[in-house]
Order: sequence, then structure tokens, then C-alpha cells
Amino acid sequence: MQTELSRASLAQLDANDPLIRFRERFQLPEGVIYLDGNSLGALPHGAAERAAQVVTQQWGHGLIRSWNDAGWFELPTRLGDKLAQLLGANPGETVVTDTTSLNLFKALASALRIQQVDGPDRRVLITERDNFPTDIYIAEGLADLLNSVGAETGVSYEVKLIDSETELLAALGDDTALVSLSHVNYRTGAMWDMAAITEAVHQAGGLAIWDLAHAAGAVPVALNAANADYAVGCTYKYLNGGPGSPAFIWVNARHHERFWQPLSGWWSHQAPFAMAESYTPANDVRRFMCGTQPVTSMAMIEVGLDISVEAEMDKVRANSLELTDLFIELVETRCAGYGLELITPRDHARRGSHVSFSHPNGYEIIAALISRGVIGDYREPAVLRFGVTPLYLSRTDIWDAVEILREVLHTGAWQREEFTVRNAVT
Amino acid sequence: MQTELSRASLAQLDANDPLIRFRERFQLPEGVIYLDGNSLGALPHGAAERAAQVVTQQWGHGLIRSWNDAGWFELPTRLGDKLAQLLGANPGETVVTDTTSLNLFKALASALRIQQVDGPDRRVLITERDNFPTDIYIAEGLADLLNSVGAETGVSYEVKLIDSETELLAALGDDTALVSLSHVNYRTGAMWDMAAITEAVHQAGGLAIWDLAHAAGAVPVALNAANADYAVGCTYKYLNGGPGSPAFIWVNARHHERFWQPLSGWWSHQAPFAMAESYTPANDVRRFMCGTQPVTSMAMIEVGLDISVEAEMDKVRANSLELTDLFIELVETRCAGYGLELITPRDHARRGSHVSFSHPNGYEIIAALISRGVIGDYREPAVLRFGVTPLYLSRTDIWDAVEILREVLHTGAWQREEFTVRNAVT
Repeated sequence: MQTELSRASLAQLDANDPLIRFRERFQLPEGVIYLDGNSLGALPHGAAERAAQVVTQQWGHGLIRSWNDAGWFELPTRLGDKLAQLLGANPGETVVTDTTSLNLFKALASALRIQQVDGPDRRVLITERDNFPTDIYIAEGLADLLNSVGAETGVSYEVKLIDSETELLAALGDDTALVSLSHVNYRTGAMWDMAAITEAVHQAGGLAIWDLAHAAGAVPVALNAANADYAVGCTYKYLNGGPGSPAFIWVNARHHERFWQPLSGWWSHQAPFAMAESYTPANDVRRFMCGTQPVTSMAMIEVGLDISVEAEMDKVRANSLELTDLFIELVETRCAGYGLELITPRDHARRGSHVSFSHPNGYEIIAALISRGVIGDYREPAVLRFGVTPLYLSRTDIWDAVEILREVLHTGAWQREEFTVRNAVT
Repeated sequence: MQTELSRASLAQLDANDPLIRFRERFQLPEGVIYLDGNSLGALPHGAAERAAQVVTQQWGHGLIRSWNDAGWFELPTRLGDKLAQLLGANPGETVVTDTTSLNLFKALASALRIQQVDGPDRRVLITERDNFPTDIYIAEGLADLLNSVGAETGVSYEVKLIDSETELLAALGDDTALVSLSHVNYRTGAMWDMAAITEAVHQAGGLAIWDLAHAAGAVPVALNAANADYAVGCTYKYLNGGPGSPAFIWVNARHHERFWQPLSGWWSHQAPFAMAESYTPANDVRRFMCGTQPVTSMAMIEVGLDISVEAEMDKVRANSLELTDLFIELVETRCAGYGLELITPRDHARRGSHVSFSHPNGYEIIAALISRGVIGDYREPAVLRFGVTPLYLSRTDIWDAVEILREVLHTGAWQREEFTVRNAVT
């Protein structure tokens, strides 16, 4: 970071930044600095046209013929292979389908099934207390379902919550079935060392499942290099796929043909149109699909995906670290004395692409920011969260956002205003 | 049916039909007679505008704020309540979410959980061999998952396939956990008597689960009057929601607060934004939701739904029966001698809204029809299937379609042509 930090000096850096041209690929509203791309990414130009094409041409004109003629059938695997480039994965290992919660259920159930054979006494599912809640709830749901049968027999699955890496390593043992973690924490932005943790989990005989919701498109991910077992994630955050666009699941090729996952809908059948009266899973990652997918929402994913692939994750990561460093430095210097406390790791190796501060009045401060066009979000408890998305955010955006934050804090405006901010999705 | 059946007489009836005005609400391609609305319904005018509004305004301009400001959060319950009017259901009993396969998994798992308490020795899931395959596969997946725990202990769930009502009634007994049937069969169009079967299932101590994929929007459904336990179904067929639009699940209010279903994602939590570290289900049907939904595909459902509600199911049903009667009569008179055999029940009380014939060369005949603009579909084995959707099909459409079928059969054109028809989604 240069010593003379000013808006002008930042604007100069922006002007010479090769990534800045990607900003033109998005339609951003006037008067808004959008620091919530980690919750819902911005609209890429071309997505509206893609939706119109699907609805008017493919649905309206092509009707049922579009399942073949417009390639609707292939969307889950075709988009999965495109996404694989951002995940350090090979073709044929990823499908775009269903939701992150559902894909996590498939991954957990599949991993437990493997352990029922490879390590039958392994019945502990380890996850993080500060994981995104759905990751815990889905593990609870699966354990509850299995225990409802086991209850008669003493077989019991347990969801164990850990609070730190030390606790995680101490918890690993002969009873560990799997470890399910979010690569980047939704609240703090803290990032696990995927390769090291996966290795430790494997050493203990467990399987490693990674939720990439806040990682895919945000940081470089290397699933095969890390030797991970399963990964799931979301396309509507850093990948700019559109509101609630279908999620993804990646499965290490060594697990593809072991067992079927229990959400064994017809899209995962080896021959869906044979209308066979019994289930035979597909021989590949398609066995992790289930039912018919929402085509319009699915098709738009490709527009955002193409931008991320073109921008290259290493370059995005370099800018992300520079912008998050800048945000932290500006808040800590220009907003000093107002009680904001950084809860995101300063260590680059442990930081995702969003920055969070705690403040007892975080809710009111975020509300005041939003009413001034700086859209960050609030997360319980007392967390102000700011997503940093280099594809459409510049250094001067960061400067301007912090200046508005400073004004809100300095004038105490947040204490006097009506607050209308409400919760929004993850 | 009048004795002098002619295109002119049918056109006269069409002209005086009050339902004919709904045809104007759809965008139908020129030169096509669409007899596959039971697979993918036609595009209603307004759906493209709705998609554009969601993408350009709500996503592009509103960004994350649209979860509240544009009512995205309420879509599953608001659309569910609208749909309930077509299902004989009350507000608060239905959510639009996920896929039919996934919703069936939730219903089956929830029903088995109830039986684990109410009837612990009931471990047989009865379904129909000729059910839509995913309904069987999902039951197999759930049974396999439970048995993977039970294996150590002798607890074993079984999926039993029946071939007829007689077999079904004979199969009901002390071991019956649930019966899962499609109200209207996807292949033959045969319809079960929902109230009578549900009562028989209840008498035997089982729970009744109905798949309405080929029934919702096609025939009047009275879930509460039939005292059904669960129902699932699809919005992209007769409800014209768009390709792969999210499905629905209805749960009898008496089961809402008994247990949580195992796909317990955060959208089904009592307080999703409290970010609680343990799962507490919502107090109502929202506990049958799971994760974030595909908003663009979801929002379009409302356009088709509004049309069905406005048209009124009793009137749609009257026309559906008249049109399917007409289709059967015309095929049996004008296409006599070419080996087509009706496999759809003649009895109105047992017929849904599509008509199927078997023919050893069904595949080739359907291909020849499609190349002439008459879009029906082919289903294994040897079935020609024709969906009859009174909202956008007239008597003269039926006449014209049968005339083209007659020509294809009479000239033997189907024997000489290259066939490009491929399978499409249910």
C-alpha cells in the first residue's frame, strides 16, 4: 500500500487496472456502491437477454422440443464442467443442480454410506458452530433420520460442533465419519486451509466435505489438489448467476461409483427414459442429480460464469486481497474511535473476499449506510459485513464507501433514523 | 357427442365456448397443434414480461433488497396459497419449492417418521409399478438409506409394487406404512379415486401420499375432502409455469407440527435469520421448505396460475372430458384399422386429461406427427401420448390433429421417414 492514500491516487490505480474492464460487463444501479455481492451477485449484461431467449424462443416457440434442441438436458453437466475450471476440478466431476442445502444432504449421506462399509463405527459428523446454519441443520436432519431407525438398536449418529481449528483437530478420531466445513465463513470471511484440513481429516479416517458458497468465484479453489471428497456451493453470490440460481455439487471421481445418494430421482438414473421400474444410478457424477431443474434460472448462470472464467481467478484474487486490505486500512484509519472491530483475519491465507466488523449498533449503522446507497449487510450478532467483488468494484468505490461510513459514524446519523433494513438471504 | 361430427360443426361449438377466450392468453407457435401440455405447458402472455421484471428491475436494480422489497421471500407460500385454490386446500397448507422428486422424499420421510411412533412395525411403502419412475426411485432411495442403518439390526423397509387396485387393496395390512400413488398416471392417463383409496389406506392404518404431477390444473382435486395426508406435484405441466419451474408440496394440517422432514435447510427454520446453531422447524407448512429457491423460474409460475384460477377447474374439466371423448371417438372412427389401441380409461371418473394409444410403431408414428406440427409424445413401451389442455386447445385442433394422424397412418409415411424425435421430460 502506498503511503499517500487518497481518492486521486486510488483512481489512478483503477485506471491502470486490467480487471477494471469487467465492470462494464455488469448493469449496476446509479448511486449505489454494492458491497453485498457475497449475498447476491450483480446482474451481468446478457443475463436478461438469456432469460428472454429461454422464455420467448425456447419455451414459447420450441416448447417440449427444447429439452433436446436447446440443450436443456445438458445444462447441469455443461455448466458443471465450465464451473469446474474455477474449482480446480476436472470435467465430469461437477453438476449444477438443486440447492446448496440439498447438495450438502447428498454429500453427507453419500459419505456416511461409504463409512458404513469402510468405517462402520464412525458415526460422528463434525462441523463448525459458526458454520452457515443450513450446514448444521442439514447434518442434524440426516442424523435425526438415521437415528430414527437406529433408536431401536443403539446405533446413533452425532453432530459435533467445534469452535476452532484446535478443537477440530482434537475432535478427529476413530469415531469421525466426516468433517463438513465452509471454506470461507459466511460471517467473518475467515478461510480454512482446505488442503491441510482435508489431509488431517483423511489421516483420521474421515471424509472431507467443503461448502464453497462464499468461496466459488471469490478465491481460487483447488479441489483435486487438496484431495477433497465432496464440495457443494452456490452460483448466485460471487458467480453472479441470479437470485436463487441452482447450486452445484462436486464429487471426487473416486467416489462416483461407490453408492447412490438417497435423493435418487430420475435425472440421476442411468437411463432416465427407459422408465425402468427400479433404480440404477448413472455411472458418473450425474448420480448426484435428482429431479427436473428450473431452466430459466439455470440458463442465466452461464452468463456470469463466462465472466469469471475470462477474468481468471488468480487475477481476481490479487485484486480481492488488495481491495480488502484497502477497506480494512481505510476503516481503521478514517473511522478510528467509533468502536468498529475487525473480525476478518488479516492473514491473506486465511481471508476470503468479504470483510466484517463487529459493532454493538451494527444493525443501525448498516441501515444508515443502505439508505445512503452503500449496500452492505448485517448478520447476527452485531456484524457489519461487506462483500468485495473485484469484477465490479474499484478502489474508489471502496474509498467512497468508507467515507460515507465515516460520515454516518461521525454525525451519529444512525442514532436518529428510522431503520428499514431487513434480513436478506445469506 | 352429436351424430354429425364435422370440422364445421366443431368450429361452431368452439365459437360458442366461453373457455375459448383463454387461448388468447397463450403464445402458441404457428403451424403447431400442441398435444404435449401435460409435459411442458405453453407460454402464457405475461411470463416473458415477468421474467424481464425479475431480472432487470428486481435483480439488476433492486439487488439484495428485492428479497424484501419485491417479495421474493414470500413467493413459496404466496404461490402455494394461490395454488391451493386448485387443489381443494386451505391457505397455509401448500408451498411451492424444490422439485417433485425432492418433495416426495420429504413427504415419504415425514410419513415414515410418523409411523415410527404411531405404527412402529409398519415398514412397507406401497407404490404402483406403473408409477412415474422417479416416484419409485425416491422410495427406493429412502428405504435404502434407512436400511443402511437398520441392516445391523434387522430393521428393514420395503418398497412394494402393485399392478392394480385389487392388488393394492390386497397388499394393505398391518405392515403398511404408506401408499404413494400418482393421482393420474403419466403414461395411460388413468386416474385413481383419491377419496376411496385414501380411506382404504387409512382403514389399514397407513398414510396416503398423492403425486399430482399430471392432475394439478388438469382435473379438480379435493385434498382436504379426500382427507389425504400429503401431496406433491409439478407446476410446469398443466399449470404452465415454465420449463422446470419449482414444484409444490401440500401437507394435511394435522401433520404440520408432528416431526421435521430430514431436508431441514434454513428456509424451513422457525427463525431463519436468527442464525441459531441448532434447528427448530417452522410451526407450519414452511417446515417443508429447504434452501433458497430459483426466483426467476419461480416468479413466472404466477402468470400461469392466475389463468387456471380464473378459468375455474370445473369448467376446464368439462371441456377436458369433451375434448378427450372427441379425440378417442375420432381416432377410433377415422383411424380405424391401423392398430391403435386405446389404453386410457373410457370411464370419465377414471380419466385424467391426456389420452394414450398403444401401437407397435408408436415411436415412428409420433416422429412423423411431430414433423407435421402435431406435437404429442412417445413413452416406453409403444405408447403414443396426447395431452389435452382445454385452456389452449379447441375442438378443431383435435379434429385437425386426428386428420394428420390419419394421413400419416393411411399413407404409411411413418415407415419411410428419418426419425429425430427424442425423449423429453415427463
